[in-house]
Parts: sequence; structure tokens; C-alpha cells
Amino acid sequence: MNGNEKKVPAVVVKRLPRYYRYLGELLKQDIKRISSNALSQKMNVTASQIRQDFNYFGGFGQQGYGYNVEHLYNEIGDILGLHDGDTTVIIGAGNLGRAIANHNTFEKRGFKLVGIFDVDKNVIGKVINGVEVMDMSHLEKFMENNRVDIGILTLPKKAVNEAAERLVKSGVRGLLNFSYTELSFDKNVAVENVHLSDPLMTLSYKMKQSEE
Amino acid sequence: MNGNEKKVPAVVVKRLPRYYRYLGELLKQDIKRISSNALSQKMNVTASQIRQDFNYFGGFGQQGYGYNVEHLYNEIGDILGLHDGDTTVIIGAGNLGRAIANHNTFEKRGFKLVGIFDVDKNVIGKVINGVEVMDMSHLEKFMENNRVDIGILTLPKKAVNEAAERLVKSGVRGLLNFSYTELSFDKNVAVENVHLSDPLMTLSYKMKQSEE
Repeated sequence: MNGNEKKVPAVVVKRLPRYYRYLGELLKQDIKRISSNALSQKMNVTASQIRQDFNYFGGFGQQGYGYNVEHLYNEIGDILGLHDGDTTVIIGAGNLGRAIANHNTFEKRGFKLVGIFDVDKNVIGKVINGVEVMDMSHLEKFMENNRVDIGILTLPKKAVNEAAERLVKSGVRGLLNFSYTELSFDKNVAVENVHLSDPLMTLSYKMKQSEE
Repeated sequence: MNGNEKKVPAVVVKRLPRYYRYLGELLKQDIKRISSNALSQKMNVTASQIRQDFNYFGGFGQQGYGYNVEHLYNEIGDILGLHDGDTTVIIGAGNLGRAIANHNTFEKRGFKLVGIFDVDKNVIGKVINGVEVMDMSHLEKFMENNRVDIGILTLPKKAVNEAAERLVKSGVRGLLNFSYTELSFDKNVAVENVHLSDPLMTLSYKMKQSEE
């Protein structure tokens, strides 16, 4: 991070993808400008929250007549690093790995899937969304010859630590971990641990509230 | 919600599943008590944040010697509605639907999968994790005869609105939507829209930060 910038709180960072998605929807609808008030109504956050969030990044120059949607979309995309052409590999070609390989949104966001790896001989050699599943024992060789920025971990929990370490040794700078465990590495490797049951628990909470 | 309680901010609600998971890990390690300081180090949030969060629910009676782990785990589970025996159906038996049906964590959190539905004749009749895939045209009939609390939507975007409406008409009170679109219903139906590309974007942001 640039030493002159304020450290952006994690909750603000977490909202950036949501802003990005909403702005993408507005662009599709050919909406050119939006006020923080209109954006706040659509997104169900307060307008002052939006302005506060955006101020961490210089405010994006809202004028009296609102934000330029395309400019804001591109700026937030820049901040999120979506224009860097990051490449990904998926480790684990089970149901979740296949779902993610087929999930076009990852590509739409600017991430390019360059490899899928598994240990299962029945899966190796199959092609998923145009990418061949390779033998996990060839991971290091592949990484020598291809730039890979991000490892997406969709393999069983018991195998995730070893796979993560091999990826990091081979040079990935980020791990997206779906394996229901908390990975962490030193500062040079970013990690996002995703827990699919978290939103189910949040939903359950909301259901309980609306009952009472 | 009870009129005497403070409305709990959405960011606090979002942290509850995380507290729950961590406390579950501590229980597994047979840890009986933990201070907010020790918990904060493990979870990478400040101790004052934890105390503030817990105060929304009466503070859980921390004593000088810390929280009782099992008590706290059970209390948060209660607040999240994990002891209500909620039942789920999955709509869409593609890769993601299958991944979720096989995902034991949902069951471990107290949610019981009672049905899977699809429109694809090649999938109908198959058994996933002990549950048969049924014909989507039989949804209403099934819902008449079975209590279903939550619909998990893992079907293509273009089909999600109709499926959601049929579920709500048949009595579900909550929707967990993985279909890359923003659903919303009136107050009586809780909705969580999950976007799998959000954590990838957050990861990308973190990678950009650690570069600079």
C-alpha cells in the first residue's frame, strides 16, 4: 500500500465487489450517471456510507449531478485489480471445482483459468470449459512454464495444506480457499477463506428475526 | 425482533457465523474458556470489537477469566437459529447443487436436506448424498407433504426467478441464492444472495496491496 493512503478497513474492502457488480448492472442498463442517494436505495446502504467508503479512494469526484457510472466502474475495477490479467488454477476437479471452472463470472471479472489439477485418474484428461484436467504430480512442472497468480482450492480439507504449500512454493501470490479450513501465509501471499455455510447461517438468523 | 432489543447491524450479523466456527474449533480442541483477547488474536479482530459485537446479545456474561466456550458456542448457535431443525431443498442438481448436497457442513450446522429438484431427465432419479433428485414439476406436491423452510437455488440465472416464486408460494421462509442475481421478497421471506466471485475480487484487492 502507498504510505500516504489510509488503510482501508476490511468491511469497506468487502463492499467493493458489491459496488462493482451493481455498477456493472447499471452499465448494462445504459445508465450514465447515478447519485449516491439513488445508488444507496438500490444497494440498501445509506448514501453517507457510500460517500464514506468512496472517500478512502479519493471520492471518485462526485459532482452535484452524481457519479459517472462507467468511470466509477472502471476505477473500482482498477482498485480491485481486475484489469491485471491475473491467471488462476483450480486444484480439485470435484463438483465444486467443476462448478467454478464453468462459472463464467470469474472470467468476466478478468481472471483467466489456465489449469485444473486433480489426483483422480478418472478425472485427469477430461476437459472442463476448455481446460484439461492435469495430474497433480505435474503441478510444479506446469508452474515453471506458466505464470499462475492465484490458486483456487476446491479439494478435500485433509489435502489442502499440502496443495497450498506447493502452490506458494511455485510462486502463486493468492489463494482462494473453499476447503472449510483457515489457511494463512506470510504477508506475500494473500488468502481468502470461503465458507459456504456462512451465508446459510446468516439466512437462518434473518429468518429467526422475521418470525419474531 | 423483540421491540426491546437494539437492531443488530448487518456487519455484526455477518461475523456471527465466523465466531460460531471458531468456537466450534476451540471446542474440538477441548478448550473450556477463552478471553476476548485470546479470541481476538485467533480471529484477527480487536478484543473491543468482539466485546462490542457480543453486547448486542447481552454480552454472554464474560467473567474476569473469560468466556465459557461451550456456553458461547451454544448461545451463538441459538441466535443463528441453528437449533431450529430447519429443512432445505436444493433446486438445480448441476455441479454446484451436487457440491452443496455433498457438503456435510450444512448438516453439521443443523440443516437437513430433504429434497433435490431438477428439470433434466438425465439427472432425475439419481441419488446424491442419500437424497433422490426429483422432477421439478413435482415441487408443489412435495411441498404440500413436507415441511421445507429453506430453498437453496443453484440453477441457471434465467430460471431462478420462477423457481424462487414457486418456493415462496409453497411456503419456504428463506432463500439461499447462488444464481448470480439479486433476489428480494417481502419481509416474510429472508434472502441471502451469494456471489462466488466476490471473494475472488477481494483476494485480488489484497494481492494488489501486498505488491505495493
